[in-house]
Amino acid sequence: MRAAYMFGAGDVRVIDAPDPKIVHPTDAVVRVVRACVCGSDLHPYHNLPAIAEGKSMGHEFVGIVEEIGDEVSSVRPGDFVIGPFAWSDGTCDFCREGLQTSCRHGGFWNAGEVKGGQAEAVRVPLADGTLVPVPVEESSPLIPSLLTLSDVYGTGWHAAVKGGVRPGSTVTVVGDGAVGLMAVLSARQLGAEQIILMGRHQVRTDLGREFGATDVVSERGDEGIERVRALTEGDGTRVVLEAVGHRPAYDQAVGVVRAGGTISRVGVPQYEDAPVGFGSLFGRNITLTGGPAPARAYIETLLPAVLDGTVEPGRVFDSEVGLDDTPAGYAAMDRREALKVLVRP
Amino acid sequence: MRAAYMFGAGDVRVIDAPDPKIVHPTDAVVRVVRACVCGSDLHPYHNLPAIAEGKSMGHEFVGIVEEIGDEVSSVRPGDFVIGPFAWSDGTCDFCREGLQTSCRHGGFWNAGEVKGGQAEAVRVPLADGTLVPVPVEESSPLIPSLLTLSDVYGTGWHAAVKGGVRPGSTVTVVGDGAVGLMAVLSARQLGAEQIILMGRHQVRTDLGREFGATDVVSERGDEGIERVRALTEGDGTRVVLEAVGHRPAYDQAVGVVRAGGTISRVGVPQYEDAPVGFGSLFGRNITLTGGPAPARAYIETLLPAVLDGTVEPGRVFDSEVGLDDTPAGYAAMDRREALKVLVRP
Repeated sequence: MRAAYMFGAGDVRVIDAPDPKIVHPTDAVVRVVRACVCGSDLHPYHNLPAIAEGKSMGHEFVGIVEEIGDEVSSVRPGDFVIGPFAWSDGTCDFCREGLQTSCRHGGFWNAGEVKGGQAEAVRVPLADGTLVPVPVEESSPLIPSLLTLSDVYGTGWHAAVKGGVRPGSTVTVVGDGAVGLMAVLSARQLGAEQIILMGRHQVRTDLGREFGATDVVSERGDEGIERVRALTEGDGTRVVLEAVGHRPAYDQAVGVVRAGGTISRVGVPQYEDAPVGFGSLFGRNITLTGGPAPARAYIETLLPAVLDGTVEPGRVFDSEVGLDDTPAGYAAMDRREALKVLVRP
Repeated sequence: MRAAYMFGAGDVRVIDAPDPKIVHPTDAVVRVVRACVCGSDLHPYHNLPAIAEGKSMGHEFVGIVEEIGDEVSSVRPGDFVIGPFAWSDGTCDFCREGLQTSCRHGGFWNAGEVKGGQAEAVRVPLADGTLVPVPVEESSPLIPSLLTLSDVYGTGWHAAVKGGVRPGSTVTVVGDGAVGLMAVLSARQLGAEQIILMGRHQVRTDLGREFGATDVVSERGDEGIERVRALTEGDGTRVVLEAVGHRPAYDQAVGVVRAGGTISRVGVPQYEDAPVGFGSLFGRNITLTGGPAPARAYIETLLPAVLDGTVEPGRVFDSEVGLDDTPAGYAAMDRREALKVLVRP
């Protein structure tokens, strides 16, 4: 089959890869209907060391079950399924608590023998715990929105839930990428009253306003912090959702959070150390939370409003490429020409 | 009057200082019945640069109101009162939310014109918001326990509350100082099932067991982390209460917290940067919270069990000095010969 592999920074190629097969009786093989390129894929796109054999890519996909192992009971061949961005058994204590990203038997795509979703098909380990069947046809116009449940929508929702957004909350969202926009939508769904979106790409921030942002701040750094403070009587917002992952975004978050408030991070940190002492978090009783979203945990919660059209998270996709053009999709997202790129195998 | 001032690291002297007087109509003057030396006083004791005029010390005291300003209505001369370790108006939005340490008009002792509690008397700003009258005589045997409500008990409680301790929680407490022991007591009161106290001073950890610790780990570093993990089926505890403030204690906390868990810090950080990235907090969805405790917020909650003898937090005091011997009290705590020192003016 054809699959996108990354061979180093900036070097994505679509190659012939082995067809996925059932290895364990708990596996399923899914033919990919749509995959996509994630903002977090741009991190290795910028800094992955050269790998001769390449690395499979993609952790978001929807598709049709082609084959199942003997022990799989929750999906059947022909089912349309959502594949969340981590695979998990669904039965361990972490999964039962809704932290599938820490599943005792699960893992992430593109690690070890498990390959990625930017491909014609995927072997899905622990299919019963991982896959969520949805009663739609693969031609459904809902496909892009359903695909966001694989990662970005669940990730934005995770940010908002961990941040404690509730009716009346004041919220700043740092970052106007797809996850930032999904964080806006999630904060709105959870009842936030004021949602300040920090971003400087007007097409994106305009979509952010449609998703529920009440204010947009395009300035960055100290100027951006001042602008948010001016919008909040000098205090900053009670919740900050950080959807970028670079250190300046962290510093921005610290600068705009109200005393006693919460910074919830879902942008994968591209730094290890950051200020947490008296002058940054401690002195003002700031809580820092977040992490990789257990997207699987949220699918059932978020699905109904997608199916009935109440929300249209799929609007974050502004571009679509065939699988062979996946490298062009990376390049377009990297140049900020595309917000989020659908991949059609 | 006599008062303890610090003139630099290791240099505490009891000097003649001006008698406190009413300056603002919202002030009260309190004659100090008991003050004490705090573990956090040891930080400047180690690193305060030399100050020719000295710096007043002490932020924990109980006493008798001597005089009140014209606008003070909640306490009267003769009342026995607890002075929490920050002063606050009690009426602003932060105070109403229980974050008196961020009061819009309040502040901390020993800053600007406001002096400290290791003295014969103190001017208390915003007396109505700050002081809590308690119906006891100054000869009451409850005095040491009431004094803990000024800071250490409320600080241990803050750690546990911010850490989300609830019935059945598993908790590690890092540090066997007075705050650590109060964190143990608080975790127990909030229903924690397993409370692992990390500390290596047996007199203190024995008291910790009486306060509710179920396990004691005296090892530090990687060995200490291994021991806590061995006590928790390899996972660590859902809550970690960090009551030290040095970087190794932070690293210890990261090492013993369960995925999805919370590190709640109340030890004043003696560092600014620390690991918060994928390998420390983010990857496992760890929450970092805590800060200076709004001790004032918790006094009414914690007082009844102190008054009826259900709890005896005052047992953390294992030494008492007269005001003139305050320097010896600092030295004894610094040498770990005393757990916490009462000061009797």
